[in-house]
Amino acid sequence: MKKIINEPDQVVQDMIDGLIAANPKSLKQVPNTFVVVRAEASVPGKVALISGGGSGHEPAHAGYIGKGMLDAAVCGEVFTSPTPDQILEAIKAVDGGSGVFLIVKNYTGDVLNFEMAAELAEAEGIQVEKVVVNDDVAVEDSSFTTGRRGIAGTVFVHKLAGAKAEQGASLTEVKAVADKVVANVRSMGMALTPCTVPAAGKPSFELAEDEMEIGIGIHGEPGINRGTISTANEIATILTEKILDDHNFFGEVAVLVNGLGATPEMELFIMNKRVHEILGSRGIKVYKTFVGEYMTSLEMAGCSVTLLALDEELKELLDAESQAPAFRM
Amino acid sequence: MKKIINEPDQVVQDMIDGLIAANPKSLKQVPNTFVVVRAEASVPGKVALISGGGSGHEPAHAGYIGKGMLDAAVCGEVFTSPTPDQILEAIKAVDGGSGVFLIVKNYTGDVLNFEMAAELAEAEGIQVEKVVVNDDVAVEDSSFTTGRRGIAGTVFVHKLAGAKAEQGASLTEVKAVADKVVANVRSMGMALTPCTVPAAGKPSFELAEDEMEIGIGIHGEPGINRGTISTANEIATILTEKILDDHNFFGEVAVLVNGLGATPEMELFIMNKRVHEILGSRGIKVYKTFVGEYMTSLEMAGCSVTLLALDEELKELLDAESQAPAFRM
Repeated sequence: MKKIINEPDQVVQDMIDGLIAANPKSLKQVPNTFVVVRAEASVPGKVALISGGGSGHEPAHAGYIGKGMLDAAVCGEVFTSPTPDQILEAIKAVDGGSGVFLIVKNYTGDVLNFEMAAELAEAEGIQVEKVVVNDDVAVEDSSFTTGRRGIAGTVFVHKLAGAKAEQGASLTEVKAVADKVVANVRSMGMALTPCTVPAAGKPSFELAEDEMEIGIGIHGEPGINRGTISTANEIATILTEKILDDHNFFGEVAVLVNGLGATPEMELFIMNKRVHEILGSRGIKVYKTFVGEYMTSLEMAGCSVTLLALDEELKELLDAESQAPAFRM
Repeated sequence: MKKIINEPDQVVQDMIDGLIAANPKSLKQVPNTFVVVRAEASVPGKVALISGGGSGHEPAHAGYIGKGMLDAAVCGEVFTSPTPDQILEAIKAVDGGSGVFLIVKNYTGDVLNFEMAAELAEAEGIQVEKVVVNDDVAVEDSSFTTGRRGIAGTVFVHKLAGAKAEQGASLTEVKAVADKVVANVRSMGMALTPCTVPAAGKPSFELAEDEMEIGIGIHGEPGINRGTISTANEIATILTEKILDDHNFFGEVAVLVNGLGATPEMELFIMNKRVHEILGSRGIKVYKTFVGEYMTSLEMAGCSVTLLALDEELKELLDAESQAPAFRM
């Protein structure tokens, strides 16, 4: 295992320490938890947004904490759901009296634990709503998922629901935006190499030197096809067309070409070129494009493509200010 | 070779196409060149900043084009200096009448070609100045370098000289800031894995499954020590102390913990934690920290640490607005 770490069972705490050392004025850790919140914790009168899940997907989710996006992130152990008590601590830390909104990727452990935390918080008088993101069109069920997996499209939920909350919207209004994003966002990924969970010490699967896997999940869950590596143009075509087949995209979209961890930015831009060509040939207009590492899988080499259909409201929210370290605009 | 590309000899053009597709309102390519410029090309009255070099270090340098940073980037073939005629095209495209400033990493090919382009431009009546960045403290000479190599510290030159130019400073004033940054910035890197130039098709060197190399260059040039992988704390200590031994850092600094391409952000934050601890123990105050991929080496796993000593002028320039896609603030 080639990693720049100290003890494998210490990686999440070390990472949080390093994240907060880098952002001492804007982020802090809730003591005795793996919960990261804005330095001011709760913003009175604002609906608070929380996301989280297993670590190893950085900058998701703690990098998206900041004005215009999240209020807190709950960091589980690597590829492991955070426990309900940790999520409850996050809810209590950021509640500003206007309710708390949970953004959950669709993995069975996350869904159960966030739901349980929501019930515990409601029992304490805190209003909680949630959305479950299931943007991955590759497979209908998977290793850790009933229904579709939540992957990089989750970042658009953070951005747009976060912008809505920052405008002073109610919990119901924030949920409506999040639901609209989930209804209109689709993603699909592929990988060239596996990744290694530090505590496991070895890759969770293998890919031969000439193999790639299409439709793989961000924890290495099986995709829809394992075959010989093809060109960037072919890969972009497979991912984009599967997405376009799944949802009636027309008008304007946002594009996210996301690196899974070890893919050079050069390759992401090469992918992006072809994604734009395909969209152009279908008469779909790209309003804004994001290329980079937004939802990773440790050091997996590979990428995903995400499309989000936009209306006027979503465009305005996409353009709104964000001060999150990993999503400044 | 596991890469998401089309033809190996087409990667730079494909990348530029994808970069411009992602930023159609802010970037454009100078026709028949590998030169990327701001959409408006020249800004009348402003000193224009150009950087460049071999490709494969993305987001360096085209990702740093935008208000507050560069005006143009000249993209060579992967790990290959751009030719003087390409650099000359960039100079002519961005000159707004107040002169052009070239930011060159210290590699023999880059230095010669940028110098020749400067002479050609001056012969056409364009005022040109330059700075050569040599921030890497690892080795005094290297495979492609006389004197120290230029690595991630170059990004601070882009940011601070770019901010100065945006304020309306003269070419002499911009050069003075760049010289001050170069005099006060130091970096050092390490790698766990090599990388593969697409046209070569195989890694340029090998590291055993338990080996790392300290002091390696961003093209895989030899470092100062190859040994068994140690902990993040030990690696951070080696890099940071070598930097601190080289320059009298005191007062306030900016920190950059840079990923070389395949290193998970988690590991960069783990490195950052220890860098901050070391600086704290020396009484050095961190003014601002940057953690991420700023100067990469294709899919090399590894990282570098950069420290920049700050005075009031440099702090103000560091804090100034930047609209470059890879360095928004």
